[in-house]
Amino acid sequence: MAFKLAIIGLGKIAQDQHLPVVAKNRDFELAAVVSSRGGHGDVPSFKTAGELFRSGIKLDAVALCMPPEPRFAIARDALDAGLHVLMEKPPTPTVGELDAITAHAEARKRILFTTWHSQYNKAVDEAQRLLKDKRVTRLHVSWKEDVRHWHPGQDWIWEPGGFGVFDPGINAFSIVTKILPQPVFVKSAMLETPRNKATPIAAQITFKPSWDGAAELTADLDWRQTGEQSWNIDVETADGLQLALRRGGTELYIGGKLTVQAPPEEYEDIYVHFAELLREGRSHVDGAPLQLVSDCFMLGRRTDTEPFL
Amino acid sequence: MAFKLAIIGLGKIAQDQHLPVVAKNRDFELAAVVSSRGGHGDVPSFKTAGELFRSGIKLDAVALCMPPEPRFAIARDALDAGLHVLMEKPPTPTVGELDAITAHAEARKRILFTTWHSQYNKAVDEAQRLLKDKRVTRLHVSWKEDVRHWHPGQDWIWEPGGFGVFDPGINAFSIVTKILPQPVFVKSAMLETPRNKATPIAAQITFKPSWDGAAELTADLDWRQTGEQSWNIDVETADGLQLALRRGGTELYIGGKLTVQAPPEEYEDIYVHFAELLREGRSHVDGAPLQLVSDCFMLGRRTDTEPFL
Repeated sequence: MAFKLAIIGLGKIAQDQHLPVVAKNRDFELAAVVSSRGGHGDVPSFKTAGELFRSGIKLDAVALCMPPEPRFAIARDALDAGLHVLMEKPPTPTVGELDAITAHAEARKRILFTTWHSQYNKAVDEAQRLLKDKRVTRLHVSWKEDVRHWHPGQDWIWEPGGFGVFDPGINAFSIVTKILPQPVFVKSAMLETPRNKATPIAAQITFKPSWDGAAELTADLDWRQTGEQSWNIDVETADGLQLALRRGGTELYIGGKLTVQAPPEEYEDIYVHFAELLREGRSHVDGAPLQLVSDCFMLGRRTDTEPFL
Repeated sequence: MAFKLAIIGLGKIAQDQHLPVVAKNRDFELAAVVSSRGGHGDVPSFKTAGELFRSGIKLDAVALCMPPEPRFAIARDALDAGLHVLMEKPPTPTVGELDAITAHAEARKRILFTTWHSQYNKAVDEAQRLLKDKRVTRLHVSWKEDVRHWHPGQDWIWEPGGFGVFDPGINAFSIVTKILPQPVFVKSAMLETPRNKATPIAAQITFKPSWDGAAELTADLDWRQTGEQSWNIDVETADGLQLALRRGGTELYIGGKLTVQAPPEEYEDIYVHFAELLREGRSHVDGAPLQLVSDCFMLGRRTDTEPFL
């Protein structure tokens, strides 16, 4: 028996990933979609989540793919309707909302799954395995891309809650929080912010270790990178392991040698994992990447930079 | 048998509150102090927390009264030394650190107590009791004081991690999160920031309810108030209850009528509660006020205002 799923929000990520991946996964049956602008083939379609929940259509779960702002209220209503919930990244605009929806899912005894697509790569899994029980002495994240190429005309990314350069940066953080054996904390963050925008276009972050001992832990996020794009994470350990994730976590180099290279099947793996969670009756909530971004804003020092046009 | 306590950090709050209150409370015995600048009477005194932990002095618990930045590492070392930990407000600079120290205290089976002094007022307790099971339709926080009077020459409050106007504002938030029957989330925050400073001097915050239904939820924080100071919280409920906390939570008015007026004994009550926690073997960790401030920074829109001199 396939799980009956509704996808709520048919923007770019739903079109590019959720719809085709769900169509291929025999554990799921697309039972409905919710979109303010048109539907999807002959699948029952609703203008609002409220209309879906009142429709009487039989459902097991919903995938929330709209922007984060309304997610808490829609997730709450879905849980109240007895449905399990998958949330695209970032799950909510604030950690407060994520904490509350986590508690609500527990109270309703429903499954909540927060996805962080960059975590679903074989190279990331192998990095996590290799770093288990190690003492990290150095971490450097270099996450540099061209906002004009990846977010043409998307004004909301520059508004509060749009995360600015932390929109891609949170993907890096979701890898870091997965592979490191112990948490890191934000020590300081420089937030380079265009004079005409609310959110940063670049950020330089220094972390501090939760473990006893010295460690050099930094991240360099930049949305002004033209030409070659950089999605790199480098880690060194006290016993001399040198580990490098490249191309957004799809390639792993150990001591300079390519060790894992796997084609990205992030969303395929996300839905395989969601089916497991549903069968096993357990939630998977990971707030660490969002908390790290929130802590960057908490301790951030804004510096003005040239207007973004 | 009194609990043997060390107070770490002998700044203003330790001198004004912790030392005299502990001296009066027969459940505690001041066994040591840690201060970089001089000691306290003939109590054994150490320059650093590390020296205290290595000293062999018999202790049950420590109270962390230094500024938040080094708190996580000192709390971790105290827990590793088998000690229970009380943390002044705010417990840590970031929520990430609070989450990690909470997990560490659980792992070490030691008591962790995060104090929020404004919560320890009879008027606040009564407000919490009256609002239980109510539906809130309006909340307004007006927290306005004169930074020059309360923080003369304290430059650190203007640095990242110094919280700016959220240093007093978090006291208001600690009352709000205690008395409201359900959480509120940050919807937007205007952060008025002096051009020569990193943290806001004033903030206007709009919250959104976690419950279904309309509610007008706002806070107005200002550090430029001369003359009369305002520490006011007003709440209205769907069934017509009108509740007003005045003077920082020491007075409660119901429908305009003064109902509770009690002299502040915040720190007396904090140490009474700490002794209870120690006897009962349970922690009391409240991250909600810090999370709310963090979410204000996450969604904050900075507006420049005149330099603070």
